[in-house]
Amino acid sequence: MSNSPALDTVLAYHRAWSAHDFEHAMTYVADDIVCDAPAGRVEGADAFREFFGPFVQIMREARMLAAFGDDETALIMYDTVTIPVASAPGAERITVRDGKITHIQIIFDRAPFEAAHAAAEAS
Amino acid sequence: MSNSPALDTVLAYHRAWSAHDFEHAMTYVADDIVCDAPAGRVEGADAFREFFGPFVQIMREARMLAAFGDDETALIMYDTVTIPVASAPGAERITVRDGKITHIQIIFDRAPFEAAHAAAEAS
Repeated sequence: MSNSPALDTVLAYHRAWSAHDFEHAMTYVADDIVCDAPAGRVEGADAFREFFGPFVQIMREARMLAAFGDDETALIMYDTVTIPVASAPGAERITVRDGKITHIQIIFDRAPFEAAHAAAEAS
Repeated sequence: MSNSPALDTVLAYHRAWSAHDFEHAMTYVADDIVCDAPAGRVEGADAFREFFGPFVQIMREARMLAAFGDDETALIMYDTVTIPVASAPGAERITVRDGKITHIQIIFDRAPFEAAHAAAEAS
């Protein structure tokens, strides 16, 4: 346990999806979650599931690089190994209310995923 | 002042480049800085200046979204308004030793910058 209630929730969420237990991860996600991602805003748990579930399926490993938090906010950075992209680091600023994740702003570089997709299309 | 010496240095560095005072920002950067960026590793203050200086020139505004730290590490997320891309958020994990920034891992989405560049080439 950290001294940040928000970070404790976020670490449990992160551990779950890192272990490919996406359904357990979703138990930490509020029904009305708002997620601001590189491609735009995703609203609601169902839309979030469609956005993030496919990533967890192509993710082989995740490794936390830094994690901080206070009462309501956590800020984390991690690296992932994925099937199309060998190193795909991400950062998330996460708001937690009553033990549920209500907002995530996620930053990652779409460029290598787009390049891998274009290479697959061309082959 | 925060209770994180690393974060104090990083906030001073961030304030300087956010105010377009890149030379003042560089006073917080160690000569042997290593910066892991989306396009790869940049080593040394001269290479870092060539990497980050052009970004500061196209940056109109920067706004801190979250900032945490401990003795040697800071983790920040911010949004920027740039000339080619209206919203270009970034996250940085920064190591500070003896008051100087020795390592930065920066995450941002290159996709909208590549799209803006392609559109400019095509016009």
